[in-house]
Amino acid sequence: YTFEKVNSEISRREDWALRRQKELPNNRRLFVLTCMDERVPIEKALGVQVGDAHIYRNAGGVVTDDVIRSAALSCNFFGSHEIIVVTHTECGMMSHFFHTDPDMILKYLEFHLGRKIDPATVPLDPSLPELELKGDLYNSFVKWIRMFDDTDKACLAQVELLRNHPLIRKDVVIHGYVYEVESGTLRFPYHRVADKVDTAEEMFAKGVWSNR
Amino acid sequence: YTFEKVNSEISRREDWALRRQKELPNNRRLFVLTCMDERVPIEKALGVQVGDAHIYRNAGGVVTDDVIRSAALSCNFFGSHEIIVVTHTECGMMSHFFHTDPDMILKYLEFHLGRKIDPATVPLDPSLPELELKGDLYNSFVKWIRMFDDTDKACLAQVELLRNHPLIRKDVVIHGYVYEVESGTLRFPYHRVADKVDTAEEMFAKGVWSNR
Amino acid sequence: YTFEKVNSEISRREDWALRRQKELPNNRRLFVLTCMDERVPIEKALGVQVGDAHIYRNAGGVVTDDVIRSAALSCNFFGSHEIIVVTHTECGMMSHFFHTDPDMILKYLEFHLGRKIDPATVPLDPSLPELELKGDLYNSFVKWIRMFDDTDKACLAQVELLRNHPLIRKDVVIHGYVYEVESGTLRFPYHRVADKVDTAEEMFAKGVWSNR
Amino acid sequence: YTFEKVNSEISRREDWALRRQKELPNNRRLFVLTCMDERVPIEKALGVQVGDAHIYRNAGGVVTDDVIRSAALSCNFFGSHEIIVVTHTECGMMSHFFHTDPDMILKYLEFHLGRKIDPATVPLDPSLPELELKGDLYNSFVKWIRMFDDTDKACLAQVELLRNHPLIRKDVVIHGYVYEVESGTLRFPYHRVADKVDTAEEMFAKGVWSNR
Amino acid sequence: YTFEKVNSEISRREDWALRRQKELPNNRRLFVLTCMDERVPIEKALGVQVGDAHIYRNAGGVVTDDVIRSAALSCNFFGSHEIIVVTHTECGMMSHFFHTDPDMILKYLEFHLGRKIDPATVPLDPSLPELELKGDLYNSFVKWIRMFDDTDKACLAQVELLRNHPLIRKDVVIHGYVYEVESGTLRFPYHRVADKVDTAEEMFAKGVWSNR
Amino acid sequence: YTFEKVNSEISRREDWALRRQKELPNNRRLFVLTCMDERVPIEKALGVQVGDAHIYRNAGGVVTDDVIRSAALSCNFFGSHEIIVVTHTECGMMSHFFHTDPDMILKYLEFHLGRKIDPATVPLDPSLPELELKGDLYNSFVKWIRMFDDTDKACLAQVELLRNHPLIRKDVVIHGYVYEVESGTLRFPYHRVADKVDTAEEMFAKGVWSNR
Amino acid sequence: YTFEKVNSEISRREDWALRRQKELPNNRRLFVLTCMDERVPIEKALGVQVGDAHIYRNAGGVVTDDVIRSAALSCNFFGSHEIIVVTHTECGMMSHFFHTDPDMILKYLEFHLGRKIDPATVPLDPSLPELELKGDLYNSFVKWIRMFDDTDKACLAQVELLRNHPLIRKDVVIHGYVYEVESGTLRFPYHRVADKVDTAEEMFAKGVWSNR
Amino acid sequence: YTFEKVNSEISRREDWALRRQKELPNNRRLFVLTCMDERVPIEKALGVQVGDAHIYRNAGGVVTDDVIRSAALSCNFFGSHEIIVVTHTECGMMSHFFHTDPDMILKYLEFHLGRKIDPATVPLDPSLPELELKGDLYNSFVKWIRMFDDTDKACLAQVELLRNHPLIRKDVVIHGYVYEVESGTLRFPYHRVADKVDTAEEMFAKGVWSNR
Repeated sequence: YTFEKVNSEISRREDWALRRQKELPNNRRLFVLTCMDERVPIEKALGVQVGDAHIYRNAGGVVTDDVIRSAALSCNFFGSHEIIVVTHTECGMMSHFFHTDPDMILKYLEFHLGRKIDPATVPLDPSLPELELKGDLYNSFVKWIRMFDDTDKACLAQVELLRNHPLIRKDVVIHGYVYEVESGTLRFPYHRVADKVDTAEEMFAKGVWSNR
Repeated sequence: YTFEKVNSEISRREDWALRRQKELPNNRRLFVLTCMDERVPIEKALGVQVGDAHIYRNAGGVVTDDVIRSAALSCNFFGSHEIIVVTHTECGMMSHFFHTDPDMILKYLEFHLGRKIDPATVPLDPSLPELELKGDLYNSFVKWIRMFDDTDKACLAQVELLRNHPLIRKDVVIHGYVYEVESGTLRFPYHRVADKVDTAEEMFAKGVWSNR
Repeated sequence: YTFEKVNSEISRREDWALRRQKELPNNRRLFVLTCMDERVPIEKALGVQVGDAHIYRNAGGVVTDDVIRSAALSCNFFGSHEIIVVTHTECGMMSHFFHTDPDMILKYLEFHLGRKIDPATVPLDPSLPELELKGDLYNSFVKWIRMFDDTDKACLAQVELLRNHPLIRKDVVIHGYVYEVESGTLRFPYHRVADKVDTAEEMFAKGVWSNR
Repeated sequence: YTFEKVNSEISRREDWALRRQKELPNNRRLFVLTCMDERVPIEKALGVQVGDAHIYRNAGGVVTDDVIRSAALSCNFFGSHEIIVVTHTECGMMSHFFHTDPDMILKYLEFHLGRKIDPATVPLDPSLPELELKGDLYNSFVKWIRMFDDTDKACLAQVELLRNHPLIRKDVVIHGYVYEVESGTLRFPYHRVADKVDTAEEMFAKGVWSNR
Repeated sequence: YTFEKVNSEISRREDWALRRQKELPNNRRLFVLTCMDERVPIEKALGVQVGDAHIYRNAGGVVTDDVIRSAALSCNFFGSHEIIVVTHTECGMMSHFFHTDPDMILKYLEFHLGRKIDPATVPLDPSLPELELKGDLYNSFVKWIRMFDDTDKACLAQVELLRNHPLIRKDVVIHGYVYEVESGTLRFPYHRVADKVDTAEEMFAKGVWSNR
Repeated sequence: YTFEKVNSEISRREDWALRRQKELPNNRRLFVLTCMDERVPIEKALGVQVGDAHIYRNAGGVVTDDVIRSAALSCNFFGSHEIIVVTHTECGMMSHFFHTDPDMILKYLEFHLGRKIDPATVPLDPSLPELELKGDLYNSFVKWIRMFDDTDKACLAQVELLRNHPLIRKDVVIHGYVYEVESGTLRFPYHRVADKVDTAEEMFAKGVWSNR
Repeated sequence: YTFEKVNSEISRREDWALRRQKELPNNRRLFVLTCMDERVPIEKALGVQVGDAHIYRNAGGVVTDDVIRSAALSCNFFGSHEIIVVTHTECGMMSHFFHTDPDMILKYLEFHLGRKIDPATVPLDPSLPELELKGDLYNSFVKWIRMFDDTDKACLAQVELLRNHPLIRKDVVIHGYVYEVESGTLRFPYHRVADKVDTAEEMFAKGVWSNR
Repeated sequence: YTFEKVNSEISRREDWALRRQKELPNNRRLFVLTCMDERVPIEKALGVQVGDAHIYRNAGGVVTDDVIRSAALSCNFFGSHEIIVVTHTECGMMSHFFHTDPDMILKYLEFHLGRKIDPATVPLDPSLPELELKGDLYNSFVKWIRMFDDTDKACLAQVELLRNHPLIRKDVVIHGYVYEVESGTLRFPYHRVADKVDTAEEMFAKGVWSNR
C-alpha cells in the first residue's frame, strides 16, 4: 500500500525535526572545534555531511569557556563521543606584532573603533555580568584576545586542554589537525609535507632514505 | 603568452592563502553567529560560499564573551561590516525541565559524567584562569549554561546584545533570523508562516483579507 | 533475433494504451482525492509516477457526489483498493469571512460576475438537470460551495465520509494527510511538527522529555 | 549586504505560502478540467509547472456540479481567466456495454460491491443530503454515472456546457483538447492525424493534395 | 603489463576495420529494408546501434531488384539470418492522384524536370544498360515508380516477396512492421492502436470487453 | 493564454506528420546515397539529424535503377536540391577474387544457398517481372551483382552517373566522399591523408614543402 | 570514529607526495618514450592516468643519451619494468629535404637564427661541457639533429637500441607503437590498416580471403 | 548546402594531420621542459590542451643536449616563441646520498643491474657513437646523471642555461616554475607560500604586515 511508504517518510522527517526532544545524537556522535575563518570548509575537509556533527567555530579555533560549555553539552547531553580540533595556517590570531608589543592591541582596537577602550568597564559577556576577569586587568584582557604564535603548537595545546577538563568524560576520543589554507588539506600537527620535499638536504634529513 | 596566464593564477592562489597578512576581508564582509546544531546548514540557508563569511557557531547561537571577542576581531581587524544571527527551532538549549527546576542541571551533568561537580573548582576556561564567575556561584553557573525559553525571543535578544556592545562599531549592520529545522528555511523572528494557514480563524486573524 | 525484442516493446506499449479495455488497474491500485490548488504537487508529495494512481482533484479536496461517483468507479470497475485524501494548508476554501456572514457569498459572487444570481434558476449541473438542491434553497446553495474551517478537521471528515459510503467496499484502505504548502511536505492531521519546536514550553508539553 | 538577499528570499517564500490570503492568482490564471486516468500526465501535456494552474480531475473529465463549483471559485474568487478541457482516448467512461444495456450498470456495481444497491437510498453526496436526483430515479442514477460514447464529442460538449453556464463569466477563454494515450500527445477534437496517413485514399481525402 | 592492454585495443579496432575481409557478420546478423524518408529514425525504432545491422533504404521501403541483390549478398556472403521490413505512414509513395490517373505521373515528372520524358530512351540503370523493361513500356515505367495504396498492405506484401525469392535462404527469419510518423513508434501491420480507443463502439468492437 | 502555446505545439507536430501531403521537403533538401554497411554511421559522418535528409542505402552505395527512381522522386517531387554519395573503405563489394574469376560468383552463391542458380529463371525483381536482363545472360547477371575494384574510383563514377542522368535536374548539386571505416571520418576521393604522413619520401612528395 | 577516516586520507596523500623518498614506483611501473609533438595525447592513447607512468618526450621520440639516462634511472632506481616507445606519423623529424641535402640543415638553422653557426663552438650541453662530438664535426652535428626517414622503421629501431643497452636490465619488457595523428590511434609498426582497405587488390593481397 | 559543411570539416582535420608539412606551429607557440615524474600533470598545471604545446620531459626536467636539440627545432623550425621550465618538489634527482658520496652511484646502479659498469665502454647514446664524455671519465659520468640539490635553484639554473644558449633566439620568452606535488600547484621559484603561514614569526617576517 502507498500509505505505508508515505507514513514512513513522514516519520523519517519527524525524527529529523525532533532529534533533541527524542534525544537522538548527531550521526557521527562528533563535536568539532575550528576557526571561524572563511577559508576553512570544515565539512568538506573532514568528509562530514549535514546531520553528522556539532560544529563549534570561533576566532582561532581555541578553547574558551564557551567551548567548554558547548562541548560539555554535546558530549554529556547530546551523545557525542568524539572531538576533533582543527586550527589552520595563516590564522588571523597569529601576530608577532601584538605579541611582542602587547599594548598595541588596545591602541589598534581603539584605532578601528574610533574611541578609547577601558578594560575595566567593557562587559566581557553582556548577558552574563557575573563573568569577570580578575588580577591585572590590562594583561588579562590581552590574554583574553587569545593571539597565538604557532598553529601546530596551538592545535596540540587545545587538544590537551580538552583532554584534561573535568566536564569532558575520559572516554571521549580527541584528536587535532591543522588545515592548510595554501593546499586545501589537513595535516597532523608538525607533520608538514612541504618541509620534506624541496631540497636533497630535506629529503635526506626527513625522508625514508635517511634511515638506511 | 602562456606564462602570463600562469602568473595570474599563481597570484590568485597566493591572495587566497595570504588573506590575513594582506589584510583582505572575507568576500561579503560578513560575521555570522549561529548554533553548532548538526541540522543547521548555515551556508546553504544564507546562500554563502566558502570564502564569503566568518562563521561563529556555539551551543545555542547565543552571545558569550567568546562571541564578543570573535565579532570584535572580525569587524575591527578583518573588515566585516555586517552581522547575521541565526537561532533555530527545536534547539537543545530550550528545556522547560531545567528551567523550572534549575538545580536539576548539575544533577543531570553529574549523572552523565559519573561524578560530582563543584562549580567553585571547575575551571570555566582552562587556558584563562583569570576568567571567573562572581556572586552566587551556583546560580551563576546555571546561567552560564545559557538555556533559553523561546527561540524567536532568544534571536532578537542576541541581536540587541551585539547592537549595544562597545566593541562593535555602530555602523555594523545586524539582523537576526530563525532557522526552522522542520521546514529547512529561515524566517523573521515571530513571523511563523505555519501559524497563519491551518484554519479559517488563522487566515482571518492574520492574513490579508482581515484588512478589508 | 531482433524481432523478438521489437515485438515485446510493441506489446508493452499496447498494454499501456489499452489498459481499460484489458481491465488492467493502475500500478498502485490507488485513488487519490486532493485539492485543485496550484501549489499541491500531489504526485511528488506521495512519491507516485505517471501510471500509478487515479487522481481526483477539486476545489478543497472535499467529498462531493462527483467524488463518490469517481471513487466508486475506480474501486469497483478499475481495481483500486486504496484511497488517500490530501487537504492542504492555506486552502482557498477556508474563510471566516463567508462563514460568519454567509449571505456575503452570493454578494461576492455577484460582484465578480457582474450580475445577480438566483439559486433557484442556476443549473447545478448543466448536463444533469435531474440533480437538484432541496429544502431552504439559499442555505443549501451556500452549503454547496463547501467552505470549511480547519484543514486538519476537514481531512479527517472526508476520510470518514468515504469509509462509510455504501458504494465504497469495506476492504478499501483509506488514509488522510495534510499537505503543508509552507514546508512542502505531508503531515498526519493535527500532528503539526512546527507546533512542537519553538519554545521550551512546547518541547516540554509535546516532546519526548515530557514523558519522563 | 547579505541580509537583503535573505529578506528577499523569505518574502518570496511567504508570497507562495500565503497566495490565497494575499489574493494572488495562479501563475497562468488557468483552470484545467481533465480525467483522473493514471495515463494522463496533464502538466507535461500542457507544458505547465507546479504553481501554474488549478487542476480539476474526475472520472471522465466531464462537467458535473462539482466542476461548476470549482471553476466558478477559480474564475471568480481566484483570478483565473482561461479554462482548458482535456478528455482522453480509451477512457474508462466509454462503454458500449452499459450504454446499450443500461440496467447492467447496477448489476455490475452490485457484483463488485457484493450487495444490492437501491438508488433511492444511496446518498449521492454524504455531506450534502440536500442534493438529490429527481424524476425517474433509476434512469437518473444511470445518467449520473456519466458514461459516454465518443471522446471527441464529449470534449466539445464539455466546452459548450462551461461556455454557457451562468456562473462562468463570458470573458473566460475556453478550449478543449483530446489527449491520445496511444501517442502521448494532444489533438484538436476530431482532428486525428492517425486518420490521414495510412492509405492513399486517406491522404487524398484529407490532405493537401486533394485541393489541387 | 600495459602493452597487453594496448595490443588488445589495437586488435579490437582492426577487427572492426577488417570485418568483411575477416568474414565477420554484423552484430545482430540482421538486414533491414525501410524507406529513405527523413522522418524514419530506423536505428532508434528497432533499438539497434552502429555495427548491428545492414540497413537498406529506398523510396518506399519496397522490394526492387536492388533489394534482392543487397539482401542476397547480406544473407549469403555476409552472414545475416534475419530480415526486418519497415514501411511507414504518410509515405510519399502513396498517392491516389497518380494511381487513378496514371498518365499524370509522366506529366508531373516532366513539369518538374522542365522537359519531355520518353520511357523508351531513359536509361533505367545508367551503369547496367542490359537492364530493360519489356512489354507495354509506358505502363511498365509507371509500375517501376512503385506507388502504392496502403502502407500496411505494402508491408505484408514486401515480406511475402522476400520470403518466396529463390536467392534468399528459407531459414532466414522475416518480419514486417509499420512505423507511425505521427506517434514515433512501430506497429504490427493492420494493428493500429489508434483505431481502438476513440469511441465506445471501437472499444466494444475490438477490445477485451467485447468477448464477455 | 496557455491554449496558444498548446495550439502551436499541436500544429508543429502535425506539420511533421503530414510533410508529404503538405509538400514540405526534408530540412536540408538533401538526398544521400551510401552503402548498407553496418559500420557507416552516415548521419553522424555528415552531421545530419532525423528530419534532415532522404537516405538511400544499398549494397555498395552504387547507382542502380532503384537509386535513379528514388533520387528522381526526391529531387522532383519532394524538393531535394543536393545529392551526396558516400562509398566506404573495406566495402564487401570489393573482391579481386570474383573479379578475376567471375564464374566463381554463381558457384559461391550456390554454395551458400545450397542449390543451383539459373540466371534465366531467377526473377530479378519479383514484383516487376517486366524488368529483365538482356544479351549474354550469364555475364549480365554477374555485372548486376556490381562488384567493384576501388572505392575512390567507384565514388567518382557514381557521382558522374547521377550528374548525367536525364531524370535528375541539372541544378541539383552533387558531391562524393569516401568514408574510412578505419578512421571513422570522410575524405575527398583519392585524398587519403594516411598516404602522406609515414615517411620523409611521402612528406616530400605530397606535402607543402615539396613546392618550395 | 571520524578521525580514523581523516588519518587514512592524510596518509594516502603523504604516500603520493613522498613517493620517491619512500621508494614507491609509479602505478604501472612503466617508462614511456615519445615525441614532444603537440598532437600526441600520449596518456589517452595508452590509457594511462596521472600517477601511472614516467613519460619521456623529446623531438622525435628517439633514443638519445638523455633517454638512456632517464630510462636507466626509471628502471633501476624507481622500479619500472616496462618500456613503451611511441613514434608518430607526420613527425617534424622526417624530412627528405635535409636528408638528401644535409648541409641545408645548418643554412636553414642559420636563416631562422639570423646568424652563423659553428659546430665547433656550439656547446651541445651547456651544463656538461665534458660532452662532445668527435670525428667529422660537421657530419656528426647533422647526425645529432636526428632527422629520420620512416616513422615505422624509426620506432622499431628505438626499441632495438633500448633492448641492447647495457644500462637497461634484460628483464625490462619493451614494445613499440606508431601513433597516427590522422586517425588518432596507435598501430603496430608497419601494420597500417589504411593500406588494406581501399581496393580489391589490397583486400586480396593483405586480407584474410587471400589465404584460402 | 550540406557539402560545404562537410568540406570544411575535412579541411579542418587535414590541417591538423599535416601541421608540420604545412609549417603550422602549435596553438600557443610554446615549448615546455619538465620532469618525466608520474605525479606532474603538466598540461593541467599550465592550463594547456592537446595541440597547444611541444612538451619535452626527461628525468629532472633539466637541460641536456637533447633539450637543446629539441628546443632549437621547436623555436627555429616549428615556430615556438615561448619556453616554460617546470621542475618539481620531491624529485627523484635530489639525493644527498649520492651527492656527498658520489662513487655510490655506480655501486648502486651495479647493484640494481646485477653487474659491473665501466664508464669507458658504456655507449652514452647507442645511435650516435660520436657523442663522448671527455676528461676524468668517472666524474663526468657522475655529472652526466645530473643529480641536483634544490629544486628551486635547479629551476632558475635551467632558465639561465636556455636564455644563454646560441641556438635559442633572444626573442624567445623564457620562464621557470616549481610544481609542488604536495599541493598540486605551481609556484614561482623560492616563493613557497607554505613558508609564510604557520607561525606568527613567519607571518611577521615575510608577509605584508612586516612592511608597516
